[in-house]
Amino acid sequence: MNSIFTKIINRELPANIVYEDDNVIAFLDINPVNPGHTLVVPKNEKSNMLESLEEDVINILKVVRTLAPAILKTVGADGFNLITNVGEGSGQTVFHTHFHIIPRFNNDGHKQWTVMEVTSDELNKIEKDIKSNI
Amino acid sequence: MNSIFTKIINRELPANIVYEDDNVIAFLDINPVNPGHTLVVPKNEKSNMLESLEEDVINILKVVRTLAPAILKTVGADGFNLITNVGEGSGQTVFHTHFHIIPRFNNDGHKQWTVMEVTSDELNKIEKDIKSNI
Repeated sequence: MNSIFTKIINRELPANIVYEDDNVIAFLDINPVNPGHTLVVPKNEKSNMLESLEEDVINILKVVRTLAPAILKTVGADGFNLITNVGEGSGQTVFHTHFHIIPRFNNDGHKQWTVMEVTSDELNKIEKDIKSNI
Repeated sequence: MNSIFTKIINRELPANIVYEDDNVIAFLDINPVNPGHTLVVPKNEKSNMLESLEEDVINILKVVRTLAPAILKTVGADGFNLITNVGEGSGQTVFHTHFHIIPRFNNDGHKQWTVMEVTSDELNKIEKDIKSNI
């Protein structure tokens, strides 16, 4: 069962495609956070950026660096967030690797992440545990 | 004037460093969104992922692919968001390229982005304009 993004790549579903090459396609998100919200997707369907081939992730990043300035110019944005979600709990809804380019405007009202209080003991323990798990 | 991240790289400021090689350093965010929140940073100080050398962005992505599974295992997360912010309005506060690895847990209460309604005419115009600006 192909993902909806593979169906877009295969022209079985319509999309506003803004960029395409042999390995990568980019199209507008139909539920944009802001105007110009674009998804950059490897043609090789894998479930997320850890599952994709390294070369596909690199290709995505190269496209983002070309495409993001054009998007920002088009919509007059002041910056952007580049986001990819991996796995359950992350907000990922389509399990085909994709990077969001979300244009942002000064004071556009999108909320900031809430942060937590942590002690240095807690940080030291997490540091130690991550290093032992690499 | 060096960024606070360059000061961490130079050991002029303390940090919980979880990974380091010749080009990239990764350390725990002291204001974590969730436990294990980590920043992956190129040693070559540039203001954002568009300004960094392509090879530095690629090196970051390679480190993320090694590091993220260790972080998820350490904190027992169900997934993660990989985020980099570029420029004013994006939420970027340190103007030295960095990618956030934010571990996520099912129903951890962190934000969903709010989305906007758009017409196909609006999407078609943006598509055309981006393509002409690439």
